[in-house]
Amino acid sequence: MRKILVIGSGKSSSFLIKYFLDKSESEDLFITIGDINTTNAERLIGKNKRAECIKLDVFDNESRTAAIKETNIVVSMLPARYHIEVAKDCITYSKNLVTASYVSKEMQELDEAVKEKGLIFMNEIGVDPGIDHMSAMQVIDRIRDNGGEMILFESFTGGLVAPESDNNLWNYKFTWNPRNVVVAGQGGAAKFLQEGTYKYIPYHRLFRRTEFLEIEGYGRFEAYANRDSLKYQHVYGLDKVQTLYRGTMRRVGFSRAWNVFVQLGMTDDSYVIDDSENMSYRDFVNLFLPYSPTDSVELKFRHQLKIDQDDIIWDKFLELDIFNAKKHVELKKATPAEILRKILLDSWTLAHEDKDMIVMYHKFGYQQYGKKHQIDSTMVVIGEDQTYTAMAKTVGLPVAIATLAIMNGKITTPGVQIPITKEVYTPILKELEDFGISFNEKEVPYLGYNPLNL
Amino acid sequence: MRKILVIGSGKSSSFLIKYFLDKSESEDLFITIGDINTTNAERLIGKNKRAECIKLDVFDNESRTAAIKETNIVVSMLPARYHIEVAKDCITYSKNLVTASYVSKEMQELDEAVKEKGLIFMNEIGVDPGIDHMSAMQVIDRIRDNGGEMILFESFTGGLVAPESDNNLWNYKFTWNPRNVVVAGQGGAAKFLQEGTYKYIPYHRLFRRTEFLEIEGYGRFEAYANRDSLKYQHVYGLDKVQTLYRGTMRRVGFSRAWNVFVQLGMTDDSYVIDDSENMSYRDFVNLFLPYSPTDSVELKFRHQLKIDQDDIIWDKFLELDIFNAKKHVELKKATPAEILRKILLDSWTLAHEDKDMIVMYHKFGYQQYGKKHQIDSTMVVIGEDQTYTAMAKTVGLPVAIATLAIMNGKITTPGVQIPITKEVYTPILKELEDFGISFNEKEVPYLGYNPLNL
Repeated sequence: MRKILVIGSGKSSSFLIKYFLDKSESEDLFITIGDINTTNAERLIGKNKRAECIKLDVFDNESRTAAIKETNIVVSMLPARYHIEVAKDCITYSKNLVTASYVSKEMQELDEAVKEKGLIFMNEIGVDPGIDHMSAMQVIDRIRDNGGEMILFESFTGGLVAPESDNNLWNYKFTWNPRNVVVAGQGGAAKFLQEGTYKYIPYHRLFRRTEFLEIEGYGRFEAYANRDSLKYQHVYGLDKVQTLYRGTMRRVGFSRAWNVFVQLGMTDDSYVIDDSENMSYRDFVNLFLPYSPTDSVELKFRHQLKIDQDDIIWDKFLELDIFNAKKHVELKKATPAEILRKILLDSWTLAHEDKDMIVMYHKFGYQQYGKKHQIDSTMVVIGEDQTYTAMAKTVGLPVAIATLAIMNGKITTPGVQIPITKEVYTPILKELEDFGISFNEKEVPYLGYNPLNL
Repeated sequence: MRKILVIGSGKSSSFLIKYFLDKSESEDLFITIGDINTTNAERLIGKNKRAECIKLDVFDNESRTAAIKETNIVVSMLPARYHIEVAKDCITYSKNLVTASYVSKEMQELDEAVKEKGLIFMNEIGVDPGIDHMSAMQVIDRIRDNGGEMILFESFTGGLVAPESDNNLWNYKFTWNPRNVVVAGQGGAAKFLQEGTYKYIPYHRLFRRTEFLEIEGYGRFEAYANRDSLKYQHVYGLDKVQTLYRGTMRRVGFSRAWNVFVQLGMTDDSYVIDDSENMSYRDFVNLFLPYSPTDSVELKFRHQLKIDQDDIIWDKFLELDIFNAKKHVELKKATPAEILRKILLDSWTLAHEDKDMIVMYHKFGYQQYGKKHQIDSTMVVIGEDQTYTAMAKTVGLPVAIATLAIMNGKITTPGVQIPITKEVYTPILKELEDFGISFNEKEVPYLGYNPLNL
């Protein structure tokens, strides 16, 4: 039997483990799932004889190295910052490694050692990063192979609630780390390239500089810019493009309302509020509004942000119950962002029957025989339930498929890498289609940033 | 003769040196001015026989210690970060020291050694910090001595252009370090206390949360909050006040227009723009606006900030010539803030005949015999010319007066200190009046933050 070690069995491991179990007979696999808490893994495995759970603390050298030594390949589903010890062991014991995380500086530094041993360390092979890399590079390579020259690339991804479970005014629930949602966009101006010119958006304008996107059958979305749209410019071979923009998708109207939190300073994660524990939600909101002996927190809020009482944005804040004087923050020495996260969790936590959704939208602009063309490519994946979520599917399946492809010798190029080569993305994207993860491509007139064609 | 060593002879040393020279006969003084460049010092001394210039590089241990060893007292007018070497020598050679700078951590750490030697290291004795400390503490102490209990303290200072030289639409020119003006308010939310509640303003809202102040004979001003209004709460003995607010004064309308730069991201000093050198002012502005194949930079600017064409704020930007496609930035790898600074210097540099102005406004609220009272205290100082500026006067004179008071044994308490005790502020504030630096006090009804008395 061929052994696979999966380290970490959190929310995004359900489809990954199911995939391995379903193939365990035909591919002759034995799956070991190591986690500090094995409850979830045990539930996912059930009575399957070709799998086991072991207690594994990634910081305990002995149990970690013992498990890695024993296996044929390692899949690390740990948070990104915990991969490095696993990666070092994989070099020591000559094991291939697959992760869905961004390549850290420390991971990149292992490249030479990995190559020396002829190993494959595949990273960023989940969703954003992952499926976005593969689906983008497949179209970009095809355009180039046909003699086209890329002039525009825009790419957008969103983790949202599925339409059938979309029942709040924000058209949003937390389907991923809530903290990351609250602090999204912070840490410096967003930078991107539009028609040959760099453009910069400071954090406090980010949610007012959105653009609209339409996906057939799913309606309109909006997107705000990621901090560094140029990150993969060189890696994708797009050094000469005129437009390069990466963004995050939300339903239309989310950003305009979210901007109110940004404007008031409620998303700040850089300082703590002394007496946060005993504060009501209303007190918290009032921290960011001028003092008045008479005016209500509601009126001050509306006045500061110039919100009319019949503006739908107002109902969004009422829905979150942020003016409630009876609900308490109950967090000691919390930052504004931590308190906001807690308030939002009251309203934006997925209910048991809720389904999530992953949406992706790429635009490829290119020039061929003196003419400009554009291909728009979209993907929508909807979750099955709270265990088999769209997030777990789009993160876990590419990781699982890549793992087997490496074991079966379909992927052979060694090194610390991300899935941007044909060798990698071709078999994986093909197999993802069997699971309903596929892209809908459309040729559209090239408009660049000139939608009115002036 | 009693010797005074003045290290540093920059813009704010004119009145300081004049004061010493004027007193040199009657007080039997000899003034040595040490600077790396002695041009300004020579001009200020003229042919006076009781003063000399020496070349002094503060980083050259030999010349620095030699000069300090020789003198009776040291005045350091260097930028704050350069004081520490001078301060250490002053301990070694048992010399008193006077500076106008904030007490740094390193300076504070010398306190014990300074006290052991019975020395006086007087700091923060210029203007903001300096005259603000003294004038505030004089009133606060008086209120307390009369049995009053402080409940509110607000304090505002501004360095502005004098009314007779105020000839641009911003009612502003650079009378102090332009870089500090451009980045003012950055680095975290402004925090203050209003009627017993902490209030927080994020940087991007700072210039929209101003308050108005009126000074008789000088019209209306506005103020935006300093980052940390609570800095001197304990030092001033105001632990129990309900309201504590410190701010920076501008002419009304400045902040609303300045906010446009903040909103666009032009005051950001945290990243460099690659091709800044060859960029026109117009290109620079366009970096922060969406791309359009047809719309002008002007229209995009107005649309983004929702500025009507007949709004006076629009004329302010035209006055700065920021849309000029012929003027070039000419700064390599500059940050947005550095470029904005350069653009503003074109318009906001004081002309030869221009005069500057320092304004200060304190509000003291207190309770006595069950009744609430308020005293408002204001100061206006106008410069004489570009050498004898209001800034040089309000910084240099208190430093000079304190120096002589220390030499003459009027100030005796040893230690690293700031001028908040009666021993210090009484003689200095009294003598400042002879130079036209005086406060206009008024009893007003106590309104706190309830101006309509509801």
